[in-house]
Amino acid sequence: MTSLLTALERDRPIGVFDSGLGGLTVAAALARRLPSESILYFGDTARVPYGSKSPDVVRRFSRQAARLLLSRDVKLLVVACNTATAHAEEALRQELEVPVVGVIEPGASAAVEATRTGRIGVLGTSGTIGSGAYDLALRRRLGEDGRVYAQPCPLFVPLVEEGWIDHPVTRAVAAEYLRPLEEVDVDVVILGCTHYPLLRGLLQDQVGSDVRLVDSGEETATAVARILADRRMARTDGPPVHSFLVSDSPLKFREFGTRATHGLVVDVSHVDIDGFGLHTERLENG
Amino acid sequence: MTSLLTALERDRPIGVFDSGLGGLTVAAALARRLPSESILYFGDTARVPYGSKSPDVVRRFSRQAARLLLSRDVKLLVVACNTATAHAEEALRQELEVPVVGVIEPGASAAVEATRTGRIGVLGTSGTIGSGAYDLALRRRLGEDGRVYAQPCPLFVPLVEEGWIDHPVTRAVAAEYLRPLEEVDVDVVILGCTHYPLLRGLLQDQVGSDVRLVDSGEETATAVARILADRRMARTDGPPVHSFLVSDSPLKFREFGTRATHGLVVDVSHVDIDGFGLHTERLENG
Repeated sequence: MTSLLTALERDRPIGVFDSGLGGLTVAAALARRLPSESILYFGDTARVPYGSKSPDVVRRFSRQAARLLLSRDVKLLVVACNTATAHAEEALRQELEVPVVGVIEPGASAAVEATRTGRIGVLGTSGTIGSGAYDLALRRRLGEDGRVYAQPCPLFVPLVEEGWIDHPVTRAVAAEYLRPLEEVDVDVVILGCTHYPLLRGLLQDQVGSDVRLVDSGEETATAVARILADRRMARTDGPPVHSFLVSDSPLKFREFGTRATHGLVVDVSHVDIDGFGLHTERLENG
Repeated sequence: MTSLLTALERDRPIGVFDSGLGGLTVAAALARRLPSESILYFGDTARVPYGSKSPDVVRRFSRQAARLLLSRDVKLLVVACNTATAHAEEALRQELEVPVVGVIEPGASAAVEATRTGRIGVLGTSGTIGSGAYDLALRRRLGEDGRVYAQPCPLFVPLVEEGWIDHPVTRAVAAEYLRPLEEVDVDVVILGCTHYPLLRGLLQDQVGSDVRLVDSGEETATAVARILADRRMARTDGPPVHSFLVSDSPLKFREFGTRATHGLVVDVSHVDIDGFGLHTERLENG
């Protein structure tokens, strides 16, 4: 009986949430790294983007997303959005009983391992950069001699969502955003937003092949694998079942997601996220 | 007693809502056209933008905004967002007891008056253009010989919100979006999003001085003045009291709004818009 229950526990999906589409790069990395694990993804497409919004609002939205995924019995929660990680990871870790994994610590850790000069650049939304979360995570590891150069890139998300992935305008925007980093001669640049790996080719051209780009999605998948192994919660056999929930219409998400993940995204449903706001507030108040 | 009540009725504010900052161009036009009228503005900054979201979600958000403003006793409702007008104006007009004025009909009417060739261009968000609302409003007035060329411009709102008002990248984006309209030789272009008047100079440079740009904010203010006069609801003396409500933090809105409206925006407060969702749903279900 015990082993049956344990097997059922292990079969529970990994919960992943993001403001919209960007977190699919993290979901895809998880599916590659942990091919037997099921993923339950929530994209808050009715309220996307988070990157330009205040910490309080991002925290409230993140609590609603967590509440939704926990109501569907996830065994671990991945905050697959840098802005939500910056503003809400700590609160969620304190409030929830399942393990919570954000994308900032794994990305920072990989960047510090990769740098030779100790000069690291970070690209992110205004919210992520303004929070100072990467700065803190990097400086703690780099020590006094390290240098962190953070650059907000608020137009990258709309450009990706517009589909201008390899477009002269996107190149011009990238040139403008990356100029300050080139002047200070960094050797590692963190893609501190889960949309940015979709611009990887263009960004690599801009910074040159000597600069290493760190995609925190891959590093986050490794961190999740370690936690599941440590807690004997990993599912190691059988085919996974992936489901995707969105707060706006499933149509655009299904179309973009299927393309961006080579078929990982198939089963997409709408969910009413407002209901989980209520539930959260009731729990918080009483 | 009757005249006292009527005076109090007339003193009620005009309600104005938008997904965020863009509707301030309409509020400013109202304040110029009707200097004694008070304005109560709601900007849904926690969920901005609307232009990329589905009709159902935009309608739900618009009902919440209307419910909020009616709870504060507005005498008329201006839908100061083209996307919300396209998806929700008709539903709001049927459901509400106060007059509802959107920005599309006034803009379309002014464009048809201005054109000499009957060839009209429309710029808007994906949601507004995809709805076909301008197309319908223009063709009804133009008759069979008219031609309407609609162009979605999804990057203009993020560029304005980034503050790149007069920037080489914005010029490059405008050149790309406007090329199809130049090829078909329109003589009037409707700025079919309330953010776009902030790019007016740059857009006028792009289309050339022979093409007339129509800003629906001005036309909407004229339509509101006419309705209030017809219903004897106009306030004609005394200083107005303007208030601004936002669903995210008031800070950024106050900063941008004060600059963009030359001091109209001063009193900005946060409001919890989710509560009005509930209320709406309860009303709809029972």
